[in-house]
Amino acid sequence: MSGEVIRCKAAVAREAGKPLVIEEVEVAPPQKMEVRLKILFTSLCHTDVYFWEAKGQNPLFPRILGHEAGGIVESVGEGVTDLKPGDKVLPIFTGECGECRHCKSEDSNMCDLLRINTDRGVMINDGKSRFSKDGEPIYHFLGTSTFSEYTVVHSGCVAKINPDAPLDKVCVLSCGISTGMGATLNVAKPKKGMSVAIFGLGAVGLAAAEGAHIAGASRIIGIDLNASRAEEAKKFGVTEFVNPKDHDKPIEQVIAAMTDGGVDRSVECTGNVKAMISAFECVHDGWGVAVLVGVPNKDDEFKTLPINFLNERTLKGTFFGNYKPRTDIPGVVEKYMNKELEVEKFITHNIGFSEINKAFDYMLKGESLRCVIRMDA
Amino acid sequence: MSGEVIRCKAAVAREAGKPLVIEEVEVAPPQKMEVRLKILFTSLCHTDVYFWEAKGQNPLFPRILGHEAGGIVESVGEGVTDLKPGDKVLPIFTGECGECRHCKSEDSNMCDLLRINTDRGVMINDGKSRFSKDGEPIYHFLGTSTFSEYTVVHSGCVAKINPDAPLDKVCVLSCGISTGMGATLNVAKPKKGMSVAIFGLGAVGLAAAEGAHIAGASRIIGIDLNASRAEEAKKFGVTEFVNPKDHDKPIEQVIAAMTDGGVDRSVECTGNVKAMISAFECVHDGWGVAVLVGVPNKDDEFKTLPINFLNERTLKGTFFGNYKPRTDIPGVVEKYMNKELEVEKFITHNIGFSEINKAFDYMLKGESLRCVIRMDA
Ligand SMILES: NC(=O)c1ccc[n+]([C@@H]2O[C@H](COP(=O)([O-])OP(=O)(O)OC[C@H]3O[C@@H](n4cnc5c(N)ncnc54)[C@H](O)[C@@H]3O)[C@@H](O)[C@H]2O)c1
Ligand SMILES: NC(=O)c1ccc[n+]([C@@H]2O[C@H](COP(=O)([O-])OP(=O)(O)OC[C@H]3O[C@@H](n4cnc5c(N)ncnc54)[C@H](O)[C@@H]3O)[C@@H](O)[C@H]2O)c1
Ligand SMILES: [Zn+2]
Ligand SMILES: [Zn+2]
Ligand SMILES: [Zn+2]
Ligand SMILES: [Zn+2]
Repeated sequence: MSGEVIRCKAAVAREAGKPLVIEEVEVAPPQKMEVRLKILFTSLCHTDVYFWEAKGQNPLFPRILGHEAGGIVESVGEGVTDLKPGDKVLPIFTGECGECRHCKSEDSNMCDLLRINTDRGVMINDGKSRFSKDGEPIYHFLGTSTFSEYTVVHSGCVAKINPDAPLDKVCVLSCGISTGMGATLNVAKPKKGMSVAIFGLGAVGLAAAEGAHIAGASRIIGIDLNASRAEEAKKFGVTEFVNPKDHDKPIEQVIAAMTDGGVDRSVECTGNVKAMISAFECVHDGWGVAVLVGVPNKDDEFKTLPINFLNERTLKGTFFGNYKPRTDIPGVVEKYMNKELEVEKFITHNIGFSEINKAFDYMLKGESLRCVIRMDA
Repeated sequence: MSGEVIRCKAAVAREAGKPLVIEEVEVAPPQKMEVRLKILFTSLCHTDVYFWEAKGQNPLFPRILGHEAGGIVESVGEGVTDLKPGDKVLPIFTGECGECRHCKSEDSNMCDLLRINTDRGVMINDGKSRFSKDGEPIYHFLGTSTFSEYTVVHSGCVAKINPDAPLDKVCVLSCGISTGMGATLNVAKPKKGMSVAIFGLGAVGLAAAEGAHIAGASRIIGIDLNASRAEEAKKFGVTEFVNPKDHDKPIEQVIAAMTDGGVDRSVECTGNVKAMISAFECVHDGWGVAVLVGVPNKDDEFKTLPINFLNERTLKGTFFGNYKPRTDIPGVVEKYMNKELEVEKFITHNIGFSEINKAFDYMLKGESLRCVIRMDA
């Protein structure tokens, strides 16, 4: 079918906060440097939910959401040489052109050409969408739009992985788990024996906790408003659980009191700007490092007294845990294959594509970590 | 005179913003772990001016200001073993007990016992002042109070230096020059060939520029509201000068336009919270690191969108350029002795103690970098 339009099922977000509608859509062939993927499994990340709710983000509808997934290459566009039909891949919301200053920098994964762009709903080659229904275009999301049986993505946003990797498991490595783990291992970089606070114990936060555990942290303090996370978090190395609702004092003071002045590292995985500020202010002066991961509402301001910086604290942020998608993610999948990294414990639900709206319910109710959606069911 | 009260001249700040008054004061002997110093030369740093103006800082009067100085040990208190009368020393506003977690950390110089405390006006041993006039106590400043012929400081706040070092020159290493240079070399750590922006081209900022020059920065962009700094800055390695007054656009946008998206490093040495925000926002996404050095007004808030962090920028702050005073400063003085570091170019004025108020005028008018005050004149 290479070169032809594919008609297939997609879950279309037509209005903010309204259930997705499974519709038959047309998926145009991949253009220059693009590939068309058959998605086999996708999962829901909180970033999808924000842009579906469109409360703190720009609304853009109709749109096909979804960015955590696994699939196989169906066809490739002009100029694509490193991918071929049949390759097993993870689409990634932030790409790697391999040529720009970011791709060549050791420190950055924010490719000038293919970095995350939450407001763009079209492909960069021609500024148009590859999705349509009855001639009406449907917008892309994060350059991935994985809530569709077929999708078109830039070839630089595709990690080619071990052909033996089970996509129903490793699909979660295409965003949340890699993001959380990388935020700790690549950015916060706790030294052995350090204390680490994790704000938000969804899949991203628990992956950050897992990263702290791998790094040999002595204490991993998990903070969440959802009391039911306390028990679950133990499986991810969290040694102490704190619910801000149980305390009158600001949470940064609670943590400082628990840790003789503050934790050595903190990783924020909530998207809540107050939690971001607390995550910064709870690190120890002199050497503390805080890392922001959560996607904030677009108008929320980060505010703190400059003295909190002068007191020798460091604040950083990261997308995708600073992993370079094409260079690094195949290796992260190998870690799973070698049993150095467990992903099963992040997958709390499995559903069929026709039930996709359930995944939104589970996340909004705080019941799921990751809900994997099987496209052919 | 060890063990006895010394009567000597001191410049007392009796009221916010009013000229200092040279008075005869009494300086009590050093107590446990304290030393009494004879100050030979002192210079004025902007931090003295803030606490004298007491506009954005808590007022505490009468007070003896001054923290950039050189002198010799007059007598030592109980328990002091590493210093003896006659030693040539620099008093430092932030100390090093050698025992606490900070002193043992590679990353921090914020000693738990002796770190900078701008609001304390007394010695920690007994919570009292060593200065008095007619029985009325006069408050200390930053644990140093060098605008006095004799002062008492904690022994952990004293760097013992090469006895051949000329105090009229190296006195400026006891705060501003070390702070600026260290902020670049120890904290911002530019790699060879990187671009560096310096906000504020007073002595601290120009020392930061000098640090960037030593590190091999390819472009050093100096930003100051004072146009007369443009010419002077060239001597300190500044390659381009930008005056925010010459631009309609926010200065971070001006810098981004000059540097294809932002500088690799920035160091803020103004104390102005808007400049702090600009210094952060002007660093390049992906890898940019900004360092705050200026002392802010106590209620000014640092505000920015969290996305500026998520885009992989780093923000840090530092006191005293992260140098540990007793461990590191003797080595910084050696760099001067070996001609690896020039301090003369920072010293724009020399006056006698009786004229000390002139130093405040020079700084407020933006005429001086450092004005060295000779105590016996
Ligand atoms: N930077 C990136 O590259 C990147 C990638 C993926 C996800 N994200 C973001 O990471 C965040 C987490 O994603 P997720 O999929 O794990 O979401 P999730 O909803 O599964 O988990 C978020 C958790 O944070 C908790 N929480 C919310 N507000 C809180 C507060 N104020 N204090 C403490 N806990 C609080 C919630 O109860 C929940 O358990 C989201 O903001 C998402 O958009 C960022
Ligand atoms: N963190 C520390 O350890 C430490 C140590 C010493 C000094 N300081 C602080 O460093 C700062 C500089 O000290 P200094 O002695 O060099 O002072 P200074 O007055 O000699 O220099 C400050 C310079 O900043 C410029 N400036 C002020 N506002 C500006 C703005 N908005 N944009 C651009 N330029 C601006 C002024 O014109 C001046 O040239 C002060 O805030 C001082 O308190 C901090
Ligand atoms: Zn995601
Ligand atoms: Zn690139
Ligand atoms: Zn100073
Ligand atoms: Zn100490």
